[in-house]
Amino acid sequence: MKVVAVAFPGFTFNDLAGPMQAFMMLPGFSSQVVWHSRDAIDSDAGVSVQATEEFGSCWKDPDILFVPGNTVSLFKQLQDDRTLDCIAELGSRAKWITSVCNGSLLLGAAGLLQGYKAASYWYTCEHLGLFGAIPTDARYVIDRNRATGGGMTAGIDFGLAMVGQIAGEAVGRVAELSFEYAPAPPFGTGRPELADPATLAQTTEMLKHLMPVEQLEGVRARRLKMGKL
Amino acid sequence: MKVVAVAFPGFTFNDLAGPMQAFMMLPGFSSQVVWHSRDAIDSDAGVSVQATEEFGSCWKDPDILFVPGNTVSLFKQLQDDRTLDCIAELGSRAKWITSVCNGSLLLGAAGLLQGYKAASYWYTCEHLGLFGAIPTDARYVIDRNRATGGGMTAGIDFGLAMVGQIAGEAVGRVAELSFEYAPAPPFGTGRPELADPATLAQTTEMLKHLMPVEQLEGVRARRLKMGKL
Repeated sequence: MKVVAVAFPGFTFNDLAGPMQAFMMLPGFSSQVVWHSRDAIDSDAGVSVQATEEFGSCWKDPDILFVPGNTVSLFKQLQDDRTLDCIAELGSRAKWITSVCNGSLLLGAAGLLQGYKAASYWYTCEHLGLFGAIPTDARYVIDRNRATGGGMTAGIDFGLAMVGQIAGEAVGRVAELSFEYAPAPPFGTGRPELADPATLAQTTEMLKHLMPVEQLEGVRARRLKMGKL
Repeated sequence: MKVVAVAFPGFTFNDLAGPMQAFMMLPGFSSQVVWHSRDAIDSDAGVSVQATEEFGSCWKDPDILFVPGNTVSLFKQLQDDRTLDCIAELGSRAKWITSVCNGSLLLGAAGLLQGYKAASYWYTCEHLGLFGAIPTDARYVIDRNRATGGGMTAGIDFGLAMVGQIAGEAVGRVAELSFEYAPAPPFGTGRPELADPATLAQTTEMLKHLMPVEQLEGVRARRLKMGKL
């Protein structure tokens, strides 16, 4: 089970961690962390990960292509056709095309979600429609060979669900117990509909600056013009 | 807020990711990833992280000392007094002494949990008592300046709770929404008491080989003899 995980400077550390931790429960798990160069790649959480391959040298036919998300760093990648084209190329041969959080915007802009139901971070989900996806407000969505998680922490639910999907439910159940995945969110504010008005207002104000969704129309227009959508 | 995260070869990737992602919400967050040498450190999930400092060169007075867990790789570190002594020294000056999963065994063997309530992975929790801790079967436990999470995925609950504890509940609530932490475990088998008998039996059999808890008496005897417990 060959997993190619794309990392980019500033990616959200936890977006990568949950899924990779789950994928490693798959029989024959083997992985590459891929970027344009074989460097240490800073995440957004004070930890750098090592890129093991470049896009040019990585597996051409991964079983799973995985893409994490982020805030400003993700929106920067959405302006970079070199990144989007590399993801599109990998996606053209990957058995599974997957993401967590707003990594689905990268898959979308790469042209990989047209006609597929897909999840994303709550703040960016509706915008998936710009790229021909069907925005779906769920913790994770598996539609044919596209599997997409919701915001960041959904990577664990997504990852365990993928283990169940690929290796069978019995393996998924063992993975969930071995991960001790019996969550207890300390504040109960993890979704807009659960949060009190002050928390929602403050978070939305913060995200408005970190996730410039008004740029997405331009990304769509550019990719359409290039014939990539 | 200076965070020193200890990584060791084979550490559980997700144990590190959840807490670091939460800590980065703390005002003035700054971090070091520390090991005996400044190398790329392989995790157990096909991703390597970069050690930014050695034990000798890292902050001597971190606000938070954090230690992840693992299976065989953690039990290997429990045999290494050099690692345990480095953790003990950092812990002697850290404001907060923290862990996730069975990282609490490392804190315990370093002599840092005597008389403190502490959490651990469900399979190893009761053994914390060998090191003078009070094993506590909870998703996370905060006892004075010791904060310990349960198994692996508890790192997110633990991390968000720490944000609330240190920066105030309002910041914790915003962090939880910004993380979209509204979990939906796909199988509902994340704790021994939730799992069906087959899942529990299979997982326990697997863990018996991966986590040699019978070695812990010897670790305790050695550390006691050295005057470190």
